Amino acid sequence: MNREPRMVQVRQNVLKQNDMVARALREEFRRSGVFVVSLVSSPGAGKTTLLEKTLAGSQGSRRVAALVGDLATENDARRLARSGAPVRQIVTGTVCHLDAMMVRRALEGWDLSALDFLFIENVGNLVCPAAYDLGEELRLVLVSVTEGEDKPLKYPPIFHGADLVVITKTDLADAVGFDRQALRKNLEGVAPGVPILEVSARTGFGMEEWLALLEERAAAARTV
Amino acid sequence: MNREPRMVQVRQNVLKQNDMVARALREEFRRSGVFVVSLVSSPGAGKTTLLEKTLAGSQGSRRVAALVGDLATENDARRLARSGAPVRQIVTGTVCHLDAMMVRRALEGWDLSALDFLFIENVGNLVCPAAYDLGEELRLVLVSVTEGEDKPLKYPPIFHGADLVVITKTDLADAVGFDRQALRKNLEGVAPGVPILEVSARTGFGMEEWLALLEERAAAARTV
Repeated sequence: MNREPRMVQVRQNVLKQNDMVARALREEFRRSGVFVVSLVSSPGAGKTTLLEKTLAGSQGSRRVAALVGDLATENDARRLARSGAPVRQIVTGTVCHLDAMMVRRALEGWDLSALDFLFIENVGNLVCPAAYDLGEELRLVLVSVTEGEDKPLKYPPIFHGADLVVITKTDLADAVGFDRQALRKNLEGVAPGVPILEVSARTGFGMEEWLALLEERAAAARTV
Repeated sequence: MNREPRMVQVRQNVLKQNDMVARALREEFRRSGVFVVSLVSSPGAGKTTLLEKTLAGSQGSRRVAALVGDLATENDARRLARSGAPVRQIVTGTVCHLDAMMVRRALEGWDLSALDFLFIENVGNLVCPAAYDLGEELRLVLVSVTEGEDKPLKYPPIFHGADLVVITKTDLADAVGFDRQALRKNLEGVAPGVPILEVSARTGFGMEEWLALLEERAAAARTV
């Protein structure tokens, strides 16, 4: 008794529903003038740390907020809230990704037009988030130098869906014998032409370039 | 229109089917006298590297084989086959974990009684593999020192289901400011009493202890 076909059909319905909600969210984000960025990666690639530095770097000059997804704990929300930005945690239980409905629920009661940037940190997972549009304008996929240069080849859907790839923890590149050329070649293979940034949240390397790119993309989106 | 309840029901049927197949596999493994070990972790935590060293360290004295799961590519199977051990790749497409049916299909035609050890490397994922029994005797969950000490708290089901936790890349512990006490405390919180090994496949640290533990567990299983 193979129940896979039924599973596939139900999954397609769920995805269709997700796409409808994501489309409505994207329209609402544009209407409100908030630029929405999502972050996807393996567990431990440095999403929260990059976000911490980004919130700290934008506070004062920009109105920023964040949603963070995890199976369990509110640790990341607590970490990020130290920046002073409004932060909400989405606890997914056993679900391996955020979906548009979770984002919509988490935003209830927020005045989006009071924000310049909203960041959405997904559950740490290089597979499941691929199929779920969250209504974001810019999807970052992070990959750390410690993970191995083959990751784009082994997890093609997630890298294929990236608007920007951020290579993190570059301060560890020498210690792990990171092969920059190999990773870039593999990225080019599954996501031709995707922009790539290298950062080290620890040393600050690349952070200025990242914040500038963010401003540039947001400005471009507002003039559309 | 919320389709989640139907999704949950279908998922429960899939899990029930998986458990039945896994139970049959476990019986077959025991009858054949092969000790089956599975490896689960984030992408890039070092499953394939640990397996490479394990196959190399066991060849000659033990009859070993491996199954490796990935969304795409046969890279890992090629890497592992260099050891001389029989290796088969399971390509999952977009599925974020192995299941017992995939394992059964991949083993077709193999004479299990000709093996002492069979290793099953799961797709890199700290969420999805948690619910799927593969019929293994020993489930390893790997976590690298570069991922952050909070991972057990943020991905409790996978650590809760571990028979053994292997902390990898200990050669990078100083470079990343790894807090051993914090990780052990967090592991104890979600998986009280779980045995923990520390290894560096690069330097060889802990490999002797790992191979000894493997022999010991296999011997204990044979006398049951």
